[in-house]
Amino acid sequence: MFQTFDATTTPKTGGPRLAALRDVMKSRGLDGYIVPRADAHQGEYVADCDARLEWLTGFTGSAGFCITLMDTAGVFIDGRYKLQVCDQVDPAHFTPIDWPQTKLGDWLASAAKNGDVIGFDPWLHTKDDIDAAIKRLAGSGITLQPCENLVDHIWSDRPAAPSDPMIPYDIALAGKSSTDKRNEIASQLREAGKGSIVLTQPDAIAWLLNTRGTDLGQTPVALAFATLDDTGHASLFIDPAKVDDMLREHLGNDVTIQPPDQFGPAIDALKGPVLVDKSTAPVWLDTRLKTAGAQITYGADPILLAKAIKNVTEIAGTTRAHIRDGVAVCEFLAWLSAQGAVPNLTEIDVVQKLETFRAAAVELKNISFDTICGTGPNGAIMHYRVTEDTNAKIEPNNLLLVDSGAQYLDGTTDITRTLAIGSPPREAINAFTLVLRGMINVSMARFPKGLAGRDIDPLARTPLWQAGLDFDHGTGHGVGVYLSVHEGPQRIARTSNVPLQPGMILSNEPGYYKPGHFGIRIENLVVVETASPLQGADDREMLQFKTLTCSPIDRALIDVNLMTRQELNWLNAYHAEVLDKLGKHCSEKTQVWLKQACRPLK
Amino acid sequence: MFQTFDATTTPKTGGPRLAALRDVMKSRGLDGYIVPRADAHQGEYVADCDARLEWLTGFTGSAGFCITLMDTAGVFIDGRYKLQVCDQVDPAHFTPIDWPQTKLGDWLASAAKNGDVIGFDPWLHTKDDIDAAIKRLAGSGITLQPCENLVDHIWSDRPAAPSDPMIPYDIALAGKSSTDKRNEIASQLREAGKGSIVLTQPDAIAWLLNTRGTDLGQTPVALAFATLDDTGHASLFIDPAKVDDMLREHLGNDVTIQPPDQFGPAIDALKGPVLVDKSTAPVWLDTRLKTAGAQITYGADPILLAKAIKNVTEIAGTTRAHIRDGVAVCEFLAWLSAQGAVPNLTEIDVVQKLETFRAAAVELKNISFDTICGTGPNGAIMHYRVTEDTNAKIEPNNLLLVDSGAQYLDGTTDITRTLAIGSPPREAINAFTLVLRGMINVSMARFPKGLAGRDIDPLARTPLWQAGLDFDHGTGHGVGVYLSVHEGPQRIARTSNVPLQPGMILSNEPGYYKPGHFGIRIENLVVVETASPLQGADDREMLQFKTLTCSPIDRALIDVNLMTRQELNWLNAYHAEVLDKLGKHCSEKTQVWLKQACRPLK
Repeated sequence: MFQTFDATTTPKTGGPRLAALRDVMKSRGLDGYIVPRADAHQGEYVADCDARLEWLTGFTGSAGFCITLMDTAGVFIDGRYKLQVCDQVDPAHFTPIDWPQTKLGDWLASAAKNGDVIGFDPWLHTKDDIDAAIKRLAGSGITLQPCENLVDHIWSDRPAAPSDPMIPYDIALAGKSSTDKRNEIASQLREAGKGSIVLTQPDAIAWLLNTRGTDLGQTPVALAFATLDDTGHASLFIDPAKVDDMLREHLGNDVTIQPPDQFGPAIDALKGPVLVDKSTAPVWLDTRLKTAGAQITYGADPILLAKAIKNVTEIAGTTRAHIRDGVAVCEFLAWLSAQGAVPNLTEIDVVQKLETFRAAAVELKNISFDTICGTGPNGAIMHYRVTEDTNAKIEPNNLLLVDSGAQYLDGTTDITRTLAIGSPPREAINAFTLVLRGMINVSMARFPKGLAGRDIDPLARTPLWQAGLDFDHGTGHGVGVYLSVHEGPQRIARTSNVPLQPGMILSNEPGYYKPGHFGIRIENLVVVETASPLQGADDREMLQFKTLTCSPIDRALIDVNLMTRQELNWLNAYHAEVLDKLGKHCSEKTQVWLKQACRPLK
Repeated sequence: MFQTFDATTTPKTGGPRLAALRDVMKSRGLDGYIVPRADAHQGEYVADCDARLEWLTGFTGSAGFCITLMDTAGVFIDGRYKLQVCDQVDPAHFTPIDWPQTKLGDWLASAAKNGDVIGFDPWLHTKDDIDAAIKRLAGSGITLQPCENLVDHIWSDRPAAPSDPMIPYDIALAGKSSTDKRNEIASQLREAGKGSIVLTQPDAIAWLLNTRGTDLGQTPVALAFATLDDTGHASLFIDPAKVDDMLREHLGNDVTIQPPDQFGPAIDALKGPVLVDKSTAPVWLDTRLKTAGAQITYGADPILLAKAIKNVTEIAGTTRAHIRDGVAVCEFLAWLSAQGAVPNLTEIDVVQKLETFRAAAVELKNISFDTICGTGPNGAIMHYRVTEDTNAKIEPNNLLLVDSGAQYLDGTTDITRTLAIGSPPREAINAFTLVLRGMINVSMARFPKGLAGRDIDPLARTPLWQAGLDFDHGTGHGVGVYLSVHEGPQRIARTSNVPLQPGMILSNEPGYYKPGHFGIRIENLVVVETASPLQGADDREMLQFKTLTCSPIDRALIDVNLMTRQELNWLNAYHAEVLDKLGKHCSEKTQVWLKQACRPLK
């Protein structure tokens, strides 16, 4: 099993570890110390050796930080983790703080005092974050001081850093050689008058060098740093244990491989204006460059956009991966349907069974995130991860929400289906139909080139809005190709001003959550493409979404009377396509089920 | 008649006037001179004495400017005026420049040369505009130099500045006393730590002091400047000829009235940080404040938002004005309908007849803008103003677009109806129905508080987008109450991030234009209000639009098969409401027509 169900932490260890941290703080003359969830790469996942926030506090969420002062310790968590943090940290030692409503600097300004010195590891914080805190604390007499990592100092059984190999990613799957990619980014650097760029995000390095890895489990990357200059030459700073001859050959002569301790000296020697993405690069880098006298320009890493716009090979691979994944999901759905109206199953049973069906494919490398499987009220917890402690029996006459995905060698999937168990209440069917209408409205949208995710986001919500409902997350996120299941810069969200471009893959996942009762989310992945020609259309350039995800939507939850003819037509066409693409690959039993699941509505 | 149909300018005068301008430029040692459409108040309309761009070039559009160099002169116009400028300016002397694609600084950088000095009147340009140009010209050796107005110097028969009285606006219509308004804005100044604000926009002054005027004809304001300090005391700088005892009494002791020549000295004496809206205030003000050693803070004029959020009295007045206007429009529509499928009418006949019906109301003060009345291809010219030269016969079997509005003492209206003359082509009916669907989607929208016009804009466009169509203007603009028919800060447009708030009045006017064939626009005014309670809704705060405009939509142009049931329900309910509200006020003949026009569809 890729997924575990253990509660990996306990609140009990928090007190003693906090005491040990305060001892070492005292010995360094520090009045406070900041421990973030992030590692030096600022990704969504961290290796075990970097799970410092979890080790110190017990809190396992994917974002946040803890500020330890001598008499108090605040654990900063966002809305998703408000309930979870209370179960995971010891309230005698830690105080949960609503973040980002209260920011690092805000809290320090009131909890610390004039003269206090607060330590932080400059590898684990971005320049943007530290700048904002310094600005907020101006005039308070409270100062931030970079220092070595104090948690590493007291974490006696800290796991070793992962030393799995960095693996070449075949051009047959990547669709473009690393040389071509490096030349393209180098040409962008030249056009912008930059001499080099420092790369600190492992998925950016993976895309640029056509490599993958297993350091972070569900995100198939190897941890490393890199630089790229305006001639297309890259230097890769990586643990030699991760490098073999095959990789060496793959990278070729234009990529210099060096051990991590050469990263600093290489930074000192960088030429020309150096491009730094200060929203993701550690502040350590900024300090080092300044000390070396380099000219720094802050700006977005151009690899982000280049990586987001998939080439035809990547789209073909992803399409294959989605058909394969669709077959596994259909086998799962058929099996679940056969369990009847009162299935004798727990959430963990369901998660395990789903993974079993996926594991039938040899191309499966991992799941793309821990499956979210919530029955009834658990479905309303947006980032629910089932553990042995929370594991609930599947509730009859309610909804079951299953959000899962897989990492195949040729593509990353992410799919949510909400299922009827027995006969869910009328209210759930109504809300499901409205969520479905929003999902369909995005799926069939045509829109002028130049629009951003912000302009599409309302389409997913208007059916809910008309009923006085809404959901408190974005409509969609970018998705990589056998890379991060969450990637930027594009999103379908109120906050996203990045214009959508052909080749971008996004999720389309509106939802509705009734706390204490049920949760609904319907998620397909889509790829942006040039809109198909249309008779009588203007000559303006328009875009549309092509749906990648292949899996039926539960008919038992759809009230066709609430839908428009156009929406129903889309759904029937989608189901016909799903049947056509998957049917032949499914088991006989599942084929029978699939035919029923995909028959036209109304 | 409020509207005239003369071509007010001729291209012939451009050459001699340009020569005269160059003579005076030479005598001042200037290599160039900028003549903008704007006056010192930066509003949409200018008094005749301020129509310098029109006088110099012949171009009558509502935005743009001319840069005169010794050997060339560029007339900068936006997309709306691309065709019009070619008819109005002499191509031997003036070159039309696409603006804002090419900005003032861009053009100077290539057309002028190192060492050139370009003069401008600092009263007629904002600091934002001049700053942008200076930034663009950095390093070019081309400099901008404030100087007296050279056009005024050579314009021998320049009309006198308007000296119409400033008129008190009754609190029974304004709904809030000027004292209360001044105290509210003063309290905002205190909260923001500002000592005073300088007001240069006549409609902001009109709102603050509860006054109106007739200096600009269709926008009922008196031209003046003012200051307001953080105690609520205002100083009004205005031509004494415009002030009578009634106004003096209305303004009271807390508003000091001074002649315009005291504006400068009063600026010199302003206390505390002075708030300046550098997007609308003349750069003259900035220079004067700096010379006086004042502390300047740049920021949005808080009156803009306060004025945009109408109180209940203003909304009640506007509602009455819209019923009155609806009656006039219905009398007009009934009359037009009686002219049959091949009416023997010109565009001017139609405009005149419409104004006649409006003039029947004693509350009518003016029209709110020159009526746009375009038959067939003329309807596709977005800002078409019919003149004796362009006047076309109403085309049978095509569309007629009529966009008009009125200034009543209690409210400002703005309505567009597109009408079938005879049997328009199928294509026009299809497009009309899509435009209507967009208009209805906005009309019936519910949406969470906090959203801006940008988030609503897509709702007006999705039906068109689905057919590969779109329109190149915003969906809606703010509207005043017996004030400007175009006001900010709110809009329904891709560029508007101002959150919508209850009380804001906006137009809802999607369109579709097929150049050379026909134009479609359907426009109602709406007011934002708190959404009515809904069973089963979340407890989140939501808003909705209430439609103010009362007038039927041409049934002959609607294909009900393209509409959803929900959209048809809205339309039928709207028509029932129109009949109910207007029927009793209409002539007997029009009542018969109205009953037919408002009967339920499908």
